[in-house]
Amino acid sequence: MRTIHYKDKKLFFENYKIENAVNSFPTPFYLYSKQKLINNFLSFQQTAKEYFDMPEICFALKANSNLELLKILSSQGSGADIVSGGELIRAINAGISPKKIVFSGVGKTKDEINLALDRDIMSFNVESAEELMLINKLAKHKNKVANIALRINPKVKALTHKYISTGYKTHKFGLLEKDLLGIVNDDTFWTSSKLVGLSVHIGSQLTCLEATKKAIQQISDCANKISTKLEFIDVGGGLGVNYSNDQKPKAPTLNEYMIAIRDNLKVNYPLKIVFEPGRSIIASTGVFVSKVLRSKQSEDCHFIIVDGGMNDFARPSLYQAYHEIYPSKDCNQKIETDIVGPICETADCFGEKRMLPKLKEDDFIVIADTGAYGHSMSSNYNLRSKPIELLINNDHSLIQIRDKQNLETL
Amino acid sequence: MRTIHYKDKKLFFENYKIENAVNSFPTPFYLYSKQKLINNFLSFQQTAKEYFDMPEICFALKANSNLELLKILSSQGSGADIVSGGELIRAINAGISPKKIVFSGVGKTKDEINLALDRDIMSFNVESAEELMLINKLAKHKNKVANIALRINPKVKALTHKYISTGYKTHKFGLLEKDLLGIVNDDTFWTSSKLVGLSVHIGSQLTCLEATKKAIQQISDCANKISTKLEFIDVGGGLGVNYSNDQKPKAPTLNEYMIAIRDNLKVNYPLKIVFEPGRSIIASTGVFVSKVLRSKQSEDCHFIIVDGGMNDFARPSLYQAYHEIYPSKDCNQKIETDIVGPICETADCFGEKRMLPKLKEDDFIVIADTGAYGHSMSSNYNLRSKPIELLINNDHSLIQIRDKQNLETL
Repeated sequence: MRTIHYKDKKLFFENYKIENAVNSFPTPFYLYSKQKLINNFLSFQQTAKEYFDMPEICFALKANSNLELLKILSSQGSGADIVSGGELIRAINAGISPKKIVFSGVGKTKDEINLALDRDIMSFNVESAEELMLINKLAKHKNKVANIALRINPKVKALTHKYISTGYKTHKFGLLEKDLLGIVNDDTFWTSSKLVGLSVHIGSQLTCLEATKKAIQQISDCANKISTKLEFIDVGGGLGVNYSNDQKPKAPTLNEYMIAIRDNLKVNYPLKIVFEPGRSIIASTGVFVSKVLRSKQSEDCHFIIVDGGMNDFARPSLYQAYHEIYPSKDCNQKIETDIVGPICETADCFGEKRMLPKLKEDDFIVIADTGAYGHSMSSNYNLRSKPIELLINNDHSLIQIRDKQNLETL
Repeated sequence: MRTIHYKDKKLFFENYKIENAVNSFPTPFYLYSKQKLINNFLSFQQTAKEYFDMPEICFALKANSNLELLKILSSQGSGADIVSGGELIRAINAGISPKKIVFSGVGKTKDEINLALDRDIMSFNVESAEELMLINKLAKHKNKVANIALRINPKVKALTHKYISTGYKTHKFGLLEKDLLGIVNDDTFWTSSKLVGLSVHIGSQLTCLEATKKAIQQISDCANKISTKLEFIDVGGGLGVNYSNDQKPKAPTLNEYMIAIRDNLKVNYPLKIVFEPGRSIIASTGVFVSKVLRSKQSEDCHFIIVDGGMNDFARPSLYQAYHEIYPSKDCNQKIETDIVGPICETADCFGEKRMLPKLKEDDFIVIADTGAYGHSMSSNYNLRSKPIELLINNDHSLIQIRDKQNLETL
């Protein structure tokens, strides 16, 4: 649940007056709430525990890999779902035990596999026969046995943006069941690796559970066809959030999500369930704050130009994503407004035809639910520094958790 | 013209054997040709000189702001079209005279304007009345007179991707003619600023000159309505390139482009013409090189997975851009292939259904024409270092012109 609201005509995020941050730090910036992050993680974990004996929550670093935020998650018992050597090192630096780290992704390199073998991670989520061959070979060289979870491609079409739908047979991800079973039964793959689990992940920002149910049924069927007793099923991530106040369909609740998994998971013996949530934990814990530089009228179009751009927050341009936008001042007189940034592309627009008060220089706007895929996708396009990141502590003090980049050394 | 070709079954870029770079540096990387960059710049400049008395070529840094490449352009006499304080500093560090720098963009901040005032740049290309007011105020404070070119919004729809079409009335860019003339005739705007030019820029990757012609007619009409004698007309950039071998429509030639401008530019007195080319100069001077990690078959779909991703080269995912892809080895037996990267999104795909030989580990691919909007749009998504950049010198020696980033400090 979003907790941005006005009190005495001032804008608050989680009971923190955002104006205080704007007056103390250069805009644009991401602003996170420590308490909300903890609450979101514990909600997920506790709900999972209501339905499963041994849930392991592995936060997906791709959504947000800020070291300080990861330290908070680590302190609450989170594991990590990683997709690169960089994310592996970051997770470990945040204090996350390698025993709680799963390594996903179709393009693991030799160096990355070796790094993960040295750390004895919980499992490699393997996406192809060639990858397994390579892991096996590298593990043998180190005289180790690699833990393997094979990722199944369940051939389902998830209801989400095509860019982040990942479970269909034409997608690069996972193994089709017949190929997966072929690998399981081929001893040449398993000389220095051990099958410990199966995994599945059908996409991100899922708002309908039908594809999830089918995927869970299929991974269950597949597990039951394998004679090896698995230690875990990794059900992936992808649970959607409500980005707009009237989003249709609404994202499932945590309970609905857990029930959909429990009711469709029919493995013949008890095993651990691994979750890889990213967005559903961290999206609502952060907002993006940008100052108004000026306004502009062009015939019927009214623009406000802000100091944040598509390099800072890419989701609207990359995925045509909708995010709620709150002005620093609220009033009854509103005007249809396009909120645009300084980047020299028409794509650089955070919201079209939004009803906003007339804003002027030094007013600011707050883009909601930007904790996930916000800073992690930022770039230096137009030779701009990436935005800084700020954290609201539980005592309402503010700390800077990412420095400004030095433009001279970019 | 692209100059990637096979000789004795090896792949060459501008007579440089690409394999040599692959064997000496970690992939993925951008590889540029110094000679081609010089040739492209001089072609543009010389063609412009055939049609115009005083052309000024201001390279658009947003396309590529690598310091070493800019030094080469500077040595050939290039000016700069900049859109941020970072680009201003970079242009000056590359040796480009502030007298040849134009500052475009709707979102110039106070700090950026002050920086540019201190450097006495050629002109601010002003996009709104509020911006001009601010420049005027800041210039007054410094006891300076700011050079101003007003950017006209010609209300034309350019034939290109909607994200990079920038000359229509619903776009955030420029001033409508009636608003522009109102500003020119309002003395309050001009106490510490001076009108020296008009500018227009209707989009990027333009392959049809009809909208350009209309825009040039309109800027001419507008210039003739202004009593002040202008020093220059800035005709913007945006000339397209041929990304595919059978692109339709083909990009105009330099001659066709210059003729379209000359024949439609009807200002009543002689003045300087400023060009802002980016892509048309630098796209073909660079290629993106990525090693094959492995291949994968999923029913009818054949994938090769490479070590470069959408974080390194964003154009295919952001604009659905087509680029030619060359395999390191050529042979007659080819198979329909999707070329994908390691990023955990289906968007992370450089080319679908391309006919390629069966490639395996340590083969590589070369994506053509990535000199523009390649590295400049790269990010650290999935906590990956941005790619390094390499330059082929005229003697065929190779130098590294961008270092690997340190993942620990990202």
